[in-house]
Amino acid sequence: MVNIELVKDLCQKTESKIVMVVVDGIGGLPYPGIGRSALEEANTPNLDSLAAISSCGLTEPVALGITPGSGPSHLALFGYDPLKYEIGRGVLEALGVGITLGPSDVAARGNFCTVDESGIITDRRAGRIPTEENQRLIESLRSISVEGIEIILEPGSFHRFVVVFRGQGLSGDIEDTDPQHVGERPKDALSRSPEAAYTAGLVNRWIAEVKKALKNERPANMILLRGFAGLPEIPTMSQAFKLTPAAIAGYPMYRGLARLVGMEILETGVSIKDEVETLTTHFDDYDFFYVHVKDTDSSGEDGNFTGKVQVIEEFDSLVPSILDLEPDVLIVTGDHSTPAKMKGHSWHPVPFLIHSQWVRTEEVEGFGESMCAKGNLGVFPALGALPLALANALKLGKFGA
Amino acid sequence: MVNIELVKDLCQKTESKIVMVVVDGIGGLPYPGIGRSALEEANTPNLDSLAAISSCGLTEPVALGITPGSGPSHLALFGYDPLKYEIGRGVLEALGVGITLGPSDVAARGNFCTVDESGIITDRRAGRIPTEENQRLIESLRSISVEGIEIILEPGSFHRFVVVFRGQGLSGDIEDTDPQHVGERPKDALSRSPEAAYTAGLVNRWIAEVKKALKNERPANMILLRGFAGLPEIPTMSQAFKLTPAAIAGYPMYRGLARLVGMEILETGVSIKDEVETLTTHFDDYDFFYVHVKDTDSSGEDGNFTGKVQVIEEFDSLVPSILDLEPDVLIVTGDHSTPAKMKGHSWHPVPFLIHSQWVRTEEVEGFGESMCAKGNLGVFPALGALPLALANALKLGKFGA
Repeated sequence: MVNIELVKDLCQKTESKIVMVVVDGIGGLPYPGIGRSALEEANTPNLDSLAAISSCGLTEPVALGITPGSGPSHLALFGYDPLKYEIGRGVLEALGVGITLGPSDVAARGNFCTVDESGIITDRRAGRIPTEENQRLIESLRSISVEGIEIILEPGSFHRFVVVFRGQGLSGDIEDTDPQHVGERPKDALSRSPEAAYTAGLVNRWIAEVKKALKNERPANMILLRGFAGLPEIPTMSQAFKLTPAAIAGYPMYRGLARLVGMEILETGVSIKDEVETLTTHFDDYDFFYVHVKDTDSSGEDGNFTGKVQVIEEFDSLVPSILDLEPDVLIVTGDHSTPAKMKGHSWHPVPFLIHSQWVRTEEVEGFGESMCAKGNLGVFPALGALPLALANALKLGKFGA
Repeated sequence: MVNIELVKDLCQKTESKIVMVVVDGIGGLPYPGIGRSALEEANTPNLDSLAAISSCGLTEPVALGITPGSGPSHLALFGYDPLKYEIGRGVLEALGVGITLGPSDVAARGNFCTVDESGIITDRRAGRIPTEENQRLIESLRSISVEGIEIILEPGSFHRFVVVFRGQGLSGDIEDTDPQHVGERPKDALSRSPEAAYTAGLVNRWIAEVKKALKNERPANMILLRGFAGLPEIPTMSQAFKLTPAAIAGYPMYRGLARLVGMEILETGVSIKDEVETLTTHFDDYDFFYVHVKDTDSSGEDGNFTGKVQVIEEFDSLVPSILDLEPDVLIVTGDHSTPAKMKGHSWHPVPFLIHSQWVRTEEVEGFGESMCAKGNLGVFPALGALPLALANALKLGKFGA
């Protein structure tokens, strides 16, 4: 059982330092023909030695059997109940392209699409136009203005883009304009609540201008919007847990997630080596570091078992550099599992290791799913990772007399 | 942690098929002089091989230390919180004798008893009259009618029977008429809430007629009623989980429990072989099958360790026939433990095995309590069985972006 409210009540500021390395999608399944997961197959002498002086277990990101997206699974690791704080799709997309969202911004995910002369959708993705074409169109749409709001546009890959509406009194409680089917018309932006009626009106006014501007384009002559959302109201990690946290992540979405909970975002490169160098440079300045390793997830999503093994081995080679910093607490885990066999996120519990001078250690042969299943932490909610980190950093006072 | 509301939100209809075999009371304790449980003592080559390609663990039926009845323990396995949906004793007894209950029926469990000339109870069980005598009395009581309701009576064993009151506007919120002690009078049926006052009046009118009818009988000259209850309001598995479920159970109570959650009840015999044949015949027609194996529980209740071992071995011999059907997910577990050493249900967590192409497998020697305690699923709530089944059948979408 995890009780975050109690943790908030009991936490105190100390000098001790916590490093939480999130190896994205680290968990896996036995791979066909190999019989071991990528983590088990990888040659990881440093993680294996670390596991032998750590407590191990498996985390459940959200709930039994539930496959999480990156948003909820990261929130849980940062100590925020992912069922309490939901991050809308539009927000996550905006974070992913590096837009810094303000508290009253509303973000949505957009597609260029094709409509026929009567306005009926014939292709929801406009034939997956080249990214360069997307960039040209977005550049032209940036000249459209709607009174009362600022509109921020960022192209994505192929037909995808992100739009952010910035202004006073906006609400993200708006239905998708994408009917999800060809043969129908794009829907108007409809408010789900009275508070969102004003925003829906502005969005529709903007869409009308976009429609005009794209009239003579082919195949991308219209847009569809989905996942309207504003930022959730969420306390910072400093407010909630009295931490001074920093994020080291090469990819925009993870920097965005960290910014959501009030982490300082440190400039870094995309390689794990860059990230560990950034950690080293700034080690004196913060007491909580979130370090994100992305490519385990990407290779898992691609079904690239060997690639995932290589990323894990690359990370392993940098573990001694992290230990050299002598953090009071070091956690190595993932936000969820991404088995190469499944080519996607999965519900399987995630290997977890915590090292401090206050852990019960394990008799283990190496860091991996099977070993963690026998670990002394058992299977526990990912929401318990931060309480465990704080406890091992001696940042939690006693409950009751 | 299990979150059924989230599971309901995320579940989707697919072609994949789930078979959940509930081996009633499968869990046990080391038997005196043997030192192993019935499941461990049984020769189960097929379950042992299956365990080696499955994920294993132990389920907690309701809560730590709680011994469940068949009602709550089955509800949990079907994905219904047993603390939210309570099945009254009367309802369970009615299901047990094969009465199909309607939504406004009120059922109660009855005893024939003996009262003296002043109406004081001298024997709460009427000397445990022979079942044939019970049947004769029930037959005669069937001629009693009360205006406004239909009354359905079914004899049980010895002094026990079931009565169902069927009509409009009835409520089961009524206190027992059984004072639980000799030397007192049978109580009137008293309503616990204003909604039940009308029903209580009808019940009392019926009891008065029964009293007259039994006046000259000995020793069974009066009745006591307990456990008044109507059906809980419960969504069907189709509504809740988008499944098309079927139940294969030789005994009426389990068919009744399955009917409660909207399963189709398939005609079958009482032997395990009959049940597996029924499964084979109907395998194309449903996507969720509940298969109930009863005699493990009965032999456990009787303290018959050898009998329980034999039933488990009989089931084991039929496991290959189930696997031949190639279900996408196969679960083998129990609803609770029934250690022969205890001659009754117990609170001990229940061996659980789930096989699909998406499980983390175990290094195990065989299916049993000790092995499951080391399984990679750990100890988890029985309410998590259905979410795990749905996840492994790829019937759950991703949570969050």
